[in-house]
Amino acid sequence: MRELFQQELKELKDGLVAIAGNVESAMSRAVKSFNESDVNLAEEVIAQDHIIDGAVKDLDEQAIAILARQSPVASDLRQVVSTLRISASLERMGDLATHLAQLARYRFPEKVAPKSIRPTFKEMGSLDLEMSKLVVELLTKPSESTINKIRDLDDTVDELHAGVFETVLSEEFSNGAGTASVVDATLASRYLERFADHAVSISKKVLYLLTGEWDPDGDE
Amino acid sequence: MRELFQQELKELKDGLVAIAGNVESAMSRAVKSFNESDVNLAEEVIAQDHIIDGAVKDLDEQAIAILARQSPVASDLRQVVSTLRISASLERMGDLATHLAQLARYRFPEKVAPKSIRPTFKEMGSLDLEMSKLVVELLTKPSESTINKIRDLDDTVDELHAGVFETVLSEEFSNGAGTASVVDATLASRYLERFADHAVSISKKVLYLLTGEWDPDGDE
Repeated sequence: MRELFQQELKELKDGLVAIAGNVESAMSRAVKSFNESDVNLAEEVIAQDHIIDGAVKDLDEQAIAILARQSPVASDLRQVVSTLRISASLERMGDLATHLAQLARYRFPEKVAPKSIRPTFKEMGSLDLEMSKLVVELLTKPSESTINKIRDLDDTVDELHAGVFETVLSEEFSNGAGTASVVDATLASRYLERFADHAVSISKKVLYLLTGEWDPDGDE
Repeated sequence: MRELFQQELKELKDGLVAIAGNVESAMSRAVKSFNESDVNLAEEVIAQDHIIDGAVKDLDEQAIAILARQSPVASDLRQVVSTLRISASLERMGDLATHLAQLARYRFPEKVAPKSIRPTFKEMGSLDLEMSKLVVELLTKPSESTINKIRDLDDTVDELHAGVFETVLSEEFSNGAGTASVVDATLASRYLERFADHAVSISKKVLYLLTGEWDPDGDE
């Protein structure tokens, strides 16, 4: 019985890692479609979001079934509860990758961002992608050092996000680019920032798993 | 023992209703501060967000303690799991009220939105507020009719949200208003739309409670 239970907990963990891998893959393609105005890639990300949603739904059902059948306590209970919390963040990260791809598709064949701001988005995208890789790593092998790395990357994303508004509000930008570019840049920056927030949120949930200390996302 | 357990479940429910009431109050003030450029009210919303965060944290701990001590099954288990899911949405709704208030504060003494778009934001704000009242009602007394009302209001918010982009992209707007207004309007509209999404998300979680059918937020 105990052995079966441990096996079930391992399946939950593996399930989360698999979904995090799907999110990383979605974000990788979303960022590329955004940077390069690749509408086919964008379509692919949008069409496949339901796979992440379905996997989250299945995993949540599995977690609830374990709560019902096994009545876990202490650290086992924390793991099951964390699974439910983390899966919700992963699902939102998939949505945000989709939103980014939608911007690329909507603006095609134009590029979403005017030239002056493209390097910033490229950097934000690659930081987000790095964070999504760290999330996979963290869920595979929880460690405080990975949690700290994620937090540090998020600080940089936040700075770049603030920089986007400065650029957009500069006279040069508002004269050269149309209003649509201002809207797109505002939304894209917000999506990229929120994606990073969710990675931080997951790392807080893993910290809870490690320490039992629960810090909700009150700072967002 | 059974009686104590029912009392504990009732406390969870009351806790959610109380937090939803706080969210409604925060949103009411946030919308007012936004519409009227009331910086004092905005400051109040921002300063009090930690109260919602703290209440969510306490309620989550209570729910996890119940899982550990009582090992609930069937509909009792569903209620505890739903509490964790719903509290997360309420916490985000509080954050979004805060974001709206931050826009009002940031732009003070100017109004956030140029004249032509203010009626739209006023309507979105009042729909959001109505939805937050319905969330309180729904958590107090779950009913499919309230769930349907929330979904219908969300449809209207989505339409208005799309309309904001049309207005912002119109020539008249982009000539008359500065780039800052475009950024602000884009963000405000996004916050108001996400707030409504979370109300829908909560109503899906309540539906799960009523029926056992779980539909994650895959459509966002």
